[in-house]
Amino acid sequence: MSGQLVECVPNFSEGRDPATIDAIVRAMLGVPDVALLNRQSDADHNRSVITLAGPPAAVVEAAFRGVEMAVELIDLTRHQGAHPRIGAADVVPFIPLQGVTIEDCVRLAERLGQRIWSRLKVPVYLYEAAARRPDRANLENIRRGQFEALAREMGTLAERNPDIGDPVCHPTAGATVVGARSFLIAFNINLGTPEVSVASNIARTIRASSGGFPCVKSMGVMLASRNLAQVSINLTDFERTPLHVVFEAVKREAARYGVEVVGSEIVGLIPGRALEMAAGYFLRFENFRPELVLENRIAAISKPAGVP
Amino acid sequence: MSGQLVECVPNFSEGRDPATIDAIVRAMLGVPDVALLNRQSDADHNRSVITLAGPPAAVVEAAFRGVEMAVELIDLTRHQGAHPRIGAADVVPFIPLQGVTIEDCVRLAERLGQRIWSRLKVPVYLYEAAARRPDRANLENIRRGQFEALAREMGTLAERNPDIGDPVCHPTAGATVVGARSFLIAFNINLGTPEVSVASNIARTIRASSGGFPCVKSMGVMLASRNLAQVSINLTDFERTPLHVVFEAVKREAARYGVEVVGSEIVGLIPGRALEMAAGYFLRFENFRPELVLENRIAAISKPAGVP
Repeated sequence: MSGQLVECVPNFSEGRDPATIDAIVRAMLGVPDVALLNRQSDADHNRSVITLAGPPAAVVEAAFRGVEMAVELIDLTRHQGAHPRIGAADVVPFIPLQGVTIEDCVRLAERLGQRIWSRLKVPVYLYEAAARRPDRANLENIRRGQFEALAREMGTLAERNPDIGDPVCHPTAGATVVGARSFLIAFNINLGTPEVSVASNIARTIRASSGGFPCVKSMGVMLASRNLAQVSINLTDFERTPLHVVFEAVKREAARYGVEVVGSEIVGLIPGRALEMAAGYFLRFENFRPELVLENRIAAISKPAGVP
Repeated sequence: MSGQLVECVPNFSEGRDPATIDAIVRAMLGVPDVALLNRQSDADHNRSVITLAGPPAAVVEAAFRGVEMAVELIDLTRHQGAHPRIGAADVVPFIPLQGVTIEDCVRLAERLGQRIWSRLKVPVYLYEAAARRPDRANLENIRRGQFEALAREMGTLAERNPDIGDPVCHPTAGATVVGARSFLIAFNINLGTPEVSVASNIARTIRASSGGFPCVKSMGVMLASRNLAQVSINLTDFERTPLHVVFEAVKREAARYGVEVVGSEIVGLIPGRALEMAAGYFLRFENFRPELVLENRIAAISKPAGVP
């Protein structure tokens, strides 16, 4: 696809009922030119992560329709899950993919935020690059205490007031966080233990906020359905902190508790470059460059080369 | 590049003199529409591996010009190196990349072989898919005893006669092997020992011809410049025998000798899929599919998706 391409990864607070999730996805894909890159629902997290891409205006329209459907179908007062959340449509980031800047994505986030408030009466917080206050760059600050605390504190504590809309939660849909950020890798590592404290301790060791890797956000999560603990990771810059380095650190820390890594999962999409880097690390390549990947070279010669 | 795309990976018996190698590469790239995907020269092997791609007729022309230049510049009677060889232009495989079958590549090999004999008077053997006798499908059979043995035996032993041309080696350029094959991964693993017998033993354990992995060809090689032994590997089908499985087997076998793997190198190009598979193996992905790779998805939506 030539021209502008933006990614949007709305997170919805429903990971168990296929009818609800399907309805939300269908609403978004009703917008022409919007492609579904990925969808992933997790019953333990009770959350679905949908990855869309397309031209900016079409993606904003799709995101709005998804939020609208989530507000209609999801009742947050009955929602339980292992992943923190404050809204039926919990968080909606825009990510530049092609021919778009992060500033463009900030404008898309603001446009979507205004529409969510004016049409759905859900108050909106702006985060990451779209944040209007420095403490809201960090999603965790906005989501502290989750929906239940936010519903009590909004309107009472000025610091918890939304960026767009009146300071009162939507009765069933809570609030929504909208923003713009760079591409991140969401990666979960499953541990061979039901002790969530082990996962939480490891998360604390590796994350930036408590002195770990600069590009890592992380928390321990319990996967009740599998009776095992998970280190849930957001890696915001895999070129700076490679995925394989984080993985090896988790493996090493887990071994201190006599615990093994039993598996891992990618949530959403992963750049090929992160996989190339990991393969090169584990296979001990001495000479690896992206130019050695066949597909990268074929793409590069899409115009005939002729004499160099 | 839309339309037909063929790869050609000529191996030349010169890996030390940059002027010679440059002259050969320059001759090949004089052909319009031919792209240089990769070039790699190894002083210990005393060999250069050049990877070209382009439309079939252009690639045959480029390969011929490279062979012609190698015949002019390389004197095999003075050549020494760790890698077996029978010709100045030692082996020239054609590989289907896009819109081309292996049968098409067999015809390209025969066309090139005829030209090499009629214009340069270098006798030609046809191998792999282009072989005219079953024992010549295997390159090792053709190259047995190398240039020195072949120069003595050709014309004396009927079984060593070439497929194209008179049964006499070119005095300085030997013979050339031309053929057609599927894409293969050339991969070398370096061991922390100067004992080439360790590399040779490991090569024997992992290769198909002595009961190892079905898609592995392998030999032990001494890297004099680094004073270490190398397991040199051709992996003919990485979907069937994954690269990481071969790597782990070499590591395990080396450990039996108290030897460590100190590094590895890709010769030529590697398909992204092989790297994805390796990353997924070492990172223990539970849910990996090629569709989770961002670039693969962006390529797939090059036409707008609309309603599913």
